[in-house]
Amino acid sequence: MQVVNRTEMIERLLKESPFICFMGLEIINIDLENSVIVMKMPLRPEFERGGPLTGQFHGGAISALIDTVGDFAIALVVGAAVPTINFRVDFLRPSTGAFLIAKATVRRSGKTVGVADVDIFDHQDRLTAIGRGCYSTQAG
Amino acid sequence: MQVVNRTEMIERLLKESPFICFMGLEIINIDLENSVIVMKMPLRPEFERGGPLTGQFHGGAISALIDTVGDFAIALVVGAAVPTINFRVDFLRPSTGAFLIAKATVRRSGKTVGVADVDIFDHQDRLTAIGRGCYSTQAG
Amino acid sequence: MQVVNRTEMIERLLKESPFICFMGLEIINIDLENSVIVMKMPLRPEFERGGPLTGQFHGGAISALIDTVGDFAIALVVGAAVPTINFRVDFLRPSTGAFLIAKATVRRSGKTVGVADVDIFDHQDRLTAIGRGCYSTQAG
Amino acid sequence: MQVVNRTEMIERLLKESPFICFMGLEIINIDLENSVIVMKMPLRPEFERGGPLTGQFHGGAISALIDTVGDFAIALVVGAAVPTINFRVDFLRPSTGAFLIAKATVRRSGKTVGVADVDIFDHQDRLTAIGRGCYSTQAG
Repeated sequence: MQVVNRTEMIERLLKESPFICFMGLEIINIDLENSVIVMKMPLRPEFERGGPLTGQFHGGAISALIDTVGDFAIALVVGAAVPTINFRVDFLRPSTGAFLIAKATVRRSGKTVGVADVDIFDHQDRLTAIGRGCYSTQAG
Repeated sequence: MQVVNRTEMIERLLKESPFICFMGLEIINIDLENSVIVMKMPLRPEFERGGPLTGQFHGGAISALIDTVGDFAIALVVGAAVPTINFRVDFLRPSTGAFLIAKATVRRSGKTVGVADVDIFDHQDRLTAIGRGCYSTQAG
Repeated sequence: MQVVNRTEMIERLLKESPFICFMGLEIINIDLENSVIVMKMPLRPEFERGGPLTGQFHGGAISALIDTVGDFAIALVVGAAVPTINFRVDFLRPSTGAFLIAKATVRRSGKTVGVADVDIFDHQDRLTAIGRGCYSTQAG
Repeated sequence: MQVVNRTEMIERLLKESPFICFMGLEIINIDLENSVIVMKMPLRPEFERGGPLTGQFHGGAISALIDTVGDFAIALVVGAAVPTINFRVDFLRPSTGAFLIAKATVRRSGKTVGVADVDIFDHQDRLTAIGRGCYSTQAG
């Protein structure tokens, strides 16, 4: 029941914002017990970096993915999308291929602040970027 | 001459990447002496957060702006766009309005690493977000 | 009057915590109007990195300086020391010499969160490190 | 053999720097295969925050622990201590008790840059802070 509600909440969030719609996110898995959410983002032509045929995601698109999926992980705990206070992205390798997988894990969700880690994998399951976001949970 | 070349380089960078084209960036000012670049990004419908009529930029779009304009500031020194190692964004207020202004300042550009600060202002000249990016200068 | 009170508050904070006492901080300047505080930290033997005679501050000591002086800047606005939510340090050059100067500036102090930037200078006034801290203002 | 050498290297690093000596670090475990190192830091009186009897580590001491143990994890791969480019600390709970445990894991170690995550636990094995450091591997 709870699982259904949280999944429905994420599905609703995916439709609410033009920016998030544009990202074309798809839910791969939701693990409520461990507050983990896994999502997939396709390589839209607008997300490419460098020359038009690099097949590489631009860092800006990866950052947007990290911010958003980290937020969703906190939302699994809080019950609503919450404002991002700040986040950091470390790029480890080029992110190439038709899609990226983002796995967000809640590290701590307190009364005022929540922190989530987001790992980004390419289609070969290689870790290409890692993010850490801090969210305002009381606004939820 | 140098100024012309660096400005031309930035203009070329604006056309090279589908992602950066999509952002619709416009050069407002380039101050080569102080390694400062100021750019403007319009609120595309795809950049909106929340419901479709909030008029607020999504944090993902703001992050992409910070990453990109910080890179351009380092490029003013290095002479080429360079890979981002990592960056951080702090959101200070909602970013509302028809456009955002990003002002990027090089704090240090060394042989291997460069660091740039990026301040984001709305159309009322209020500071809405701040970013700090670290770039790999030797790859330039 | 206000200035006296805020200065007294910082002087009290300098004595309250064993860790901060140990750092040996000295107030150089307090600019209440712009929420800027400048402090000096001597190179204690315990703060040295590498071999015992490098004369270089260890990054850990610099980080502690950034966290603390950023907190004091927010305290100038809030009226009390506040918990750090998170902070980031970028090291730009070795920090060598008998002392460091930390200049902390409040970028935003809201109802729940405050953000301060801290620039670190050596005795030759060279920028050696920069920090950005996020603090919980409602706990103040 | 390799294990002995790397462990010896860490033990040598613990003695080389006055700052690191002062921290009183102790090796708990080194897992070379996964590039993980676990270390323990006692609560020196100088590390206490707030009033002298809080029994809480000051954030500055925790930050120094994160920077140092993250560096050691990268050193397990690179074979030498390396300069920190930047790092971030998120404080999740007060760090109280007679000691802290720091567990550092290498997320990526490339030709120029390495990234390590550091989790901090108190004596009750509660996660109290998390750090992420970026190091210059080519200087190693």
